[in-house]
Amino acid sequence: MRPDGQDDDMTVDPQRALVVGVDYGTLSGRAVVVRVHDGAELGSGVHAYPHAVMDSQLTAGPAAEAGEPVALAPEWALQVPADYVDVLKTAVPAALAAAQAEHGIDVNDVIGIGTDFTACTMVPTTADGTPLCELPEFADRPHAYVKLWKHHAAQSHADRINALAHERGEAWINRYGGLISSEWEFAKGLQLLEEDREVYDAMDHWVEAADWIVWQLGGRYVRNACTAGYKGIYQDGEYPSTDFLAALNPEFAGFVADKVEHEIGQLGAPAGRLTAEAAAWTGLPKGIAVAVGNVDAHVTAPAANAVEPGQMVAIMGTSTCHVMNGDELHQVPGMCGVVDGGIVEGLWGYEAGQSGVGDIFGWFVDNGVPPAYVTAAAERGLSVHQYLTELAAEQQIGEHGLIALDWHSGNRSVLVDHELSGIVVGQTLATKPEDTYRALLEATAFGTRTIVEAFTSSGVPVTELVVAGGLLKNALLMQIYADVTRLPLSTIASDQGPALGSAIHAAVAAGAYPDVRTAAKSMGKRTVAAYTPIEENSQRYDALFAEYSTLHDYFGRGANEVMHRLKAIRREARADRLGADA
Amino acid sequence: MRPDGQDDDMTVDPQRALVVGVDYGTLSGRAVVVRVHDGAELGSGVHAYPHAVMDSQLTAGPAAEAGEPVALAPEWALQVPADYVDVLKTAVPAALAAAQAEHGIDVNDVIGIGTDFTACTMVPTTADGTPLCELPEFADRPHAYVKLWKHHAAQSHADRINALAHERGEAWINRYGGLISSEWEFAKGLQLLEEDREVYDAMDHWVEAADWIVWQLGGRYVRNACTAGYKGIYQDGEYPSTDFLAALNPEFAGFVADKVEHEIGQLGAPAGRLTAEAAAWTGLPKGIAVAVGNVDAHVTAPAANAVEPGQMVAIMGTSTCHVMNGDELHQVPGMCGVVDGGIVEGLWGYEAGQSGVGDIFGWFVDNGVPPAYVTAAAERGLSVHQYLTELAAEQQIGEHGLIALDWHSGNRSVLVDHELSGIVVGQTLATKPEDTYRALLEATAFGTRTIVEAFTSSGVPVTELVVAGGLLKNALLMQIYADVTRLPLSTIASDQGPALGSAIHAAVAAGAYPDVRTAAKSMGKRTVAAYTPIEENSQRYDALFAEYSTLHDYFGRGANEVMHRLKAIRREARADRLGADA
Repeated sequence: MRPDGQDDDMTVDPQRALVVGVDYGTLSGRAVVVRVHDGAELGSGVHAYPHAVMDSQLTAGPAAEAGEPVALAPEWALQVPADYVDVLKTAVPAALAAAQAEHGIDVNDVIGIGTDFTACTMVPTTADGTPLCELPEFADRPHAYVKLWKHHAAQSHADRINALAHERGEAWINRYGGLISSEWEFAKGLQLLEEDREVYDAMDHWVEAADWIVWQLGGRYVRNACTAGYKGIYQDGEYPSTDFLAALNPEFAGFVADKVEHEIGQLGAPAGRLTAEAAAWTGLPKGIAVAVGNVDAHVTAPAANAVEPGQMVAIMGTSTCHVMNGDELHQVPGMCGVVDGGIVEGLWGYEAGQSGVGDIFGWFVDNGVPPAYVTAAAERGLSVHQYLTELAAEQQIGEHGLIALDWHSGNRSVLVDHELSGIVVGQTLATKPEDTYRALLEATAFGTRTIVEAFTSSGVPVTELVVAGGLLKNALLMQIYADVTRLPLSTIASDQGPALGSAIHAAVAAGAYPDVRTAAKSMGKRTVAAYTPIEENSQRYDALFAEYSTLHDYFGRGANEVMHRLKAIRREARADRLGADA
Repeated sequence: MRPDGQDDDMTVDPQRALVVGVDYGTLSGRAVVVRVHDGAELGSGVHAYPHAVMDSQLTAGPAAEAGEPVALAPEWALQVPADYVDVLKTAVPAALAAAQAEHGIDVNDVIGIGTDFTACTMVPTTADGTPLCELPEFADRPHAYVKLWKHHAAQSHADRINALAHERGEAWINRYGGLISSEWEFAKGLQLLEEDREVYDAMDHWVEAADWIVWQLGGRYVRNACTAGYKGIYQDGEYPSTDFLAALNPEFAGFVADKVEHEIGQLGAPAGRLTAEAAAWTGLPKGIAVAVGNVDAHVTAPAANAVEPGQMVAIMGTSTCHVMNGDELHQVPGMCGVVDGGIVEGLWGYEAGQSGVGDIFGWFVDNGVPPAYVTAAAERGLSVHQYLTELAAEQQIGEHGLIALDWHSGNRSVLVDHELSGIVVGQTLATKPEDTYRALLEATAFGTRTIVEAFTSSGVPVTELVVAGGLLKNALLMQIYADVTRLPLSTIASDQGPALGSAIHAAVAAGAYPDVRTAAKSMGKRTVAAYTPIEENSQRYDALFAEYSTLHDYFGRGANEVMHRLKAIRREARADRLGADA
């Protein structure tokens, strides 16, 4: 025991030392027990949030209990903070029990805990961190609940922030590819102010859930450098100015000073030590290191041992998030953000994104595949995705005669335009579902190449593509990405990327490694160059990418704004019909 | 009896006089018995060709009978002439029997027979009209058979004809929108010469099936003015010159003089009188008038009583053929052809076309509609087309947010470019099958408007759109066409348009009417202005048509030839894979 009465990590045998990583996703939290010296994953547990995502009505609070739940407007998405604590009470003990049963671990060998979270997910709290929704007077007020990352009801507020930033020539807007998202801290905060002033006034802190959970574990509120930078517009030690905020709304002038500004913690640093209460929830030793909070995508980079400049990590799921470190600050057109220490301390962390990837493939499978294919897949014991992939894999590159633009969910990088939409060029009466499916796979690869080229030509060269996320299981897709980008493509060698990444941060916070870069080398895992570009394929794709780029610029850079006009026509027509129906 | 021993038509009571029309389609022939004074359809019969379309092997001839059929190359499509005679032996007697049973007609009241045929469908014959495939020495030679309209294996020959015509500045090429089709007489003839010289040399006449069947009925070979003009490049009394033919291939120099040139018959004129043999086949009175041959699309105009200038008749099926008369000769960009007397004697007959219409809808239903929709349609007792139409009809115009180009089967009018392909712009993750289906319906309407505007702006104004063909049953589609074109839309009031049109020609050939224009007024039928444009809808469509036109010109007029390049890439990739597999 140390003089301060807390356990001393150093008493643990380095060969036996363990850490726990907890990954908070959109619908559940997952804990994993990891060995510090080699990153071996020894046990895991998962817990689904009881209230999941509340997007049509409040399923918590007295009104819901009385059977009269409060309705939510479209685009809302809320969560209940107690659900996050439930993960600590169930998934962490389950992971420990599994590690004990399978590997005979001793819980006293655990020296730290780290967490990552969806972002930007915001909790309004009192001064002591109590979520406002847990106060009886606010328990039926939607604005008192957690605004999940995909709460998109603050778009008009984001639009005002963006317009004003460009009007005033705010330098920080360029750190975000010229566009602040409706998902981020300031847009959601402005919505809160303007729609529920009472809740806004009662709020002492506007807290990232990533930091709120750390506060619950370690007893201290520390803003992590990652979300402060990427979601909180914290750049070069400053937030947007009071003048700027006042110009948005005079009542918003004190937003930063009153609700946001707080101690910043670097990634991998300890934010506190496990409280007695949290030790009781989790079954972990009191006093172990609690790492500064982090974000699921960003924490995946060390999990894949891919935190060096040039290693672009693509977390490929329904959408793709790209994170990469660089030695220097550069303006990359259309990036989501660049933050000093945003991924690891001491490097510039770059983030980019493709707003539609797996969800485009899923949309096609759900809406564009005829019965004969669905039946044939079932007979073969394959998913429709697998069946289409198998058929598509038989084709020579270009044989389908198609080019698609992967904008069905808009375009984040590099065009930053959510009013764009999808397109398929070249269909004939001979076009089969596997042709279109393959064209959509390729379109997302062309989208990635466009981002890679934007980085490289902006002075942030990409030398290796590291893929994490569910889509890495599709070998055809991976080979296409390698061929299209002409990069060696590595794949993360863990099914629990984010939780492993959080465990790495826990190990660093506990002092087992000097920094995340060093820890990643021992604990992170990837299959280096699992796929390598085949030059003949790359040459074939060069021709198709040239077509993609021409269409990309024609539809995306103002030559023909048909997609914008179609969306406007669509909205107007829909309103007309609903008006006529009413 | 007249002095020449033939029955005298004039002995028939005008109120009782009947005619027979026979429509030769791609897979079957259909006969209808029609009353001369009012066009009433009294009985019909149909007969499917025993050999249907031969497109992979010869199913006729000794080799086929011996179980070793001769294989056909891709793009070939042949037929057997005896199948056409079978229609005379079965469908005509069946139609007469039905008319007798249902209306008590007397077969001696029949005063004429008329026919229409697919075109350009070519029969190589001896001097007496015997098809070469009926000669024992050629019965296993593919080139001795009928080349059906959709035999597309002469594309390279058509390409040479077109290139040379433009190189030499031949005036006639402008009468065909600048492009001769691979389907037509000269391309197919050149292929015959170059691929089977022996058959070519044995051929005395290169006969349109439309004229060959008339020859069988009336005993005389007369080339009809319609196919001579539209398919045989007969303009202003001349065919392409010997010089031109020699430049294509010195051996082809005599093609016109030796194989093609022959007496021309005007539409509605008698080509002969029914021979004893044909009377025996059909059960019709020997010696009745046999009308000059005609083409299915063109003969539909009088059937709809729509042969006056300004009445554009659109025969809408898998593709759409537009025919319209004009008082004057004008060059309409992208038309298929303009022929003096090509539809009715004394007017300029214009033809245009959309190469993909119903087949695009069919392709989408077969390849792009998920199981839940197919099941829901079946449960409702609807076809998938009907179900999608019902869902699409609920939408406000523009609500789907899509624009499509209807080029899945290339574009005939007005771009005359078969290397173009389809496109859909605006799809999102919320796009449903009915959205895309409706966008495809609308795209074909925009294609029609593009043609209508080309005619009107070239001095051939369109004042009424008259629809025939299977698609007229889709009321949503018809209203869309009326709204998009801002034209009154009439529909033909007969299910047997072409056969009725042939019957009208029979009546004129028999002398019951002075000309086809007069006969059409009494015998043709249409519902005038069955659909009229709704101004509010037209205004909404104006906005979408503007988007269509911009994309039409961008992809279709050289700004971005991506579709051409994709087709070239596709061909090359396919050849590579097949080569690699071999």
